[in-house]
Amino acid sequence: MGVVVPLDKQREAQDTLKPLLALVEEDMGRVNGIIVEKARSDVDMIPELARHLIDSGGKRLRPMLTIAAAKLCGYQGEGHVKLAASVEFMHTATLLHDDVVDESDLRRGKIAARMLWGNEASVLVGDFLLGQAFKMMVEVGSLGCLRVLSNAAVVIAEGEVFQLSIAKNTATTEEEYLAVINGKTAALFAAAAEVGGIIAERSPAEQAALHSYGENLGLAFQLVDDALDYSGEQAKLGKSVGDDFREGKITLPVLLSFRRGDAEERAFWQRTLEAGEMGEEDLERAIGYMTHSGALEDTIRRADHYGAMASDALAIFPASAAKSALLDAVEFCVRRAH
Amino acid sequence: MGVVVPLDKQREAQDTLKPLLALVEEDMGRVNGIIVEKARSDVDMIPELARHLIDSGGKRLRPMLTIAAAKLCGYQGEGHVKLAASVEFMHTATLLHDDVVDESDLRRGKIAARMLWGNEASVLVGDFLLGQAFKMMVEVGSLGCLRVLSNAAVVIAEGEVFQLSIAKNTATTEEEYLAVINGKTAALFAAAAEVGGIIAERSPAEQAALHSYGENLGLAFQLVDDALDYSGEQAKLGKSVGDDFREGKITLPVLLSFRRGDAEERAFWQRTLEAGEMGEEDLERAIGYMTHSGALEDTIRRADHYGAMASDALAIFPASAAKSALLDAVEFCVRRAH
Repeated sequence: MGVVVPLDKQREAQDTLKPLLALVEEDMGRVNGIIVEKARSDVDMIPELARHLIDSGGKRLRPMLTIAAAKLCGYQGEGHVKLAASVEFMHTATLLHDDVVDESDLRRGKIAARMLWGNEASVLVGDFLLGQAFKMMVEVGSLGCLRVLSNAAVVIAEGEVFQLSIAKNTATTEEEYLAVINGKTAALFAAAAEVGGIIAERSPAEQAALHSYGENLGLAFQLVDDALDYSGEQAKLGKSVGDDFREGKITLPVLLSFRRGDAEERAFWQRTLEAGEMGEEDLERAIGYMTHSGALEDTIRRADHYGAMASDALAIFPASAAKSALLDAVEFCVRRAH
Repeated sequence: MGVVVPLDKQREAQDTLKPLLALVEEDMGRVNGIIVEKARSDVDMIPELARHLIDSGGKRLRPMLTIAAAKLCGYQGEGHVKLAASVEFMHTATLLHDDVVDESDLRRGKIAARMLWGNEASVLVGDFLLGQAFKMMVEVGSLGCLRVLSNAAVVIAEGEVFQLSIAKNTATTEEEYLAVINGKTAALFAAAAEVGGIIAERSPAEQAALHSYGENLGLAFQLVDDALDYSGEQAKLGKSVGDDFREGKITLPVLLSFRRGDAEERAFWQRTLEAGEMGEEDLERAIGYMTHSGALEDTIRRADHYGAMASDALAIFPASAAKSALLDAVEFCVRRAH
């Protein structure tokens, strides 16, 4: 397996996102308008900091899921746009708080907000965006959507605290790792997709299918992300390769390498990730161990598994442009690693 | 005026809180039960950190306002208990995030959570409690209450960011200071009282009266707090005297002293609060200037003004035990300073 992505394959991966982008384009224009509008405040620092993050533009996958799920369910109203903006604000708030927690220098390829405005501002503007997210949900007025999204907020925070509590521990199990990425990523993906079905008043089975689609897509997405942290190119990734390594984050590639390694390799992981003693060449050595042991390859294989579960979850929906766009999105999340 | 509180007057101030405590006692028992229950998590660090803060027990004034307001409005249901717990969780989350922002060492007379578990955990457990707060509000199912409380969350965060942006600036106006304390304190007091009226389905005029009562009570409370920071006794206050001074916080006692001072005094405030150059005797000197200029006395006078507005807001309600307990609470908030 070649974990470093050849250019033509990369282009193919991008192609698999195009149907989703086309499907949601018009609505996402309105979502983006709301995002800009709701980041306004008389307190100058808020829009400045929020715009820094908004302009650096992630893929906005999460709000796209809400829009696409609503379309899949034939929703005709307006609520999905504000719900999608809420989802993106919840995500942005998490990023701001994460950067404080991780002491990151880069975010989406730009200097992290905390480096420019300070940790305090990142914490408080995150709180502001979370508040705006809930305000918008309330405006939409669906208690079902509020239930799912407020529950996601709790699960996300729990996942982040859990990640903190098992940090730097190479004895972390794969199950514990899955609990972490369920909280930090899959919970919001799941909620983002599910609210599209709730606002369209579809059956509990269909809402559950969308939840499962989002959750498994999120797991696949995060697994690939964790592999790319040791194999991606910095510009494409929008963060530094090796960030997770330097922060001592225990991700699946590390877990697998540690388990599969001999005494010398385990000593290496304990010295670098547990004791935090890192030299200049240690990242390269880490990547070497991961490639050699097949840990990176198998992390992608795990992602394939959850991707398959995501696709199968949608099987109860009849064929439509929205359905095939959502299925292609699974492929995108997994294939960007190949 | 004696700013250092004589013991017998302190006892009198405590007496004015007794009717409120008696009125809400039974319901607050259930609120406290919910608070303990909802701070549970499989992630050990969450209940540990939350309990540290919960056990150090503030007065729980905010949830008491919700309970008392619901009683004032003759509410017969169960929703007010969860709403009150939500209000307290919103407050606790703010405290956790504030301590990170302020780099405080003490909170409610105990070591601040961030000193024991780190800034990261304080940020994330704050997020968890905020998420639980919204979950409980959704369970109560009143969109009106959700609207008021989510709006408060936004105003609180805006106020905190605004406070950050004008920090260490002795040229801050009294209006700017009022905007800060409206966000950091009065907004949640207002929402806490208002939701008691909303859940009881009282008229818009009565809801507005409760909002006004809470807001003005909050302003009075914070003004007194800011005066006590330069005059209270550490044990009673549950935080260090002079915390605001050491953090360079520009509160009304400072604003008034700066304006009323001569060139030498202004140079003192600029050196200590703007430039952050403080010696061992500077706090004492600051208190001396504040007493001499009447700044502490007049801060309390301002608190009296807002306290009077709070009391008058309740005039549209007929006499009842709940009403007189709420009126006594105004006296408590103001008189604990005398």
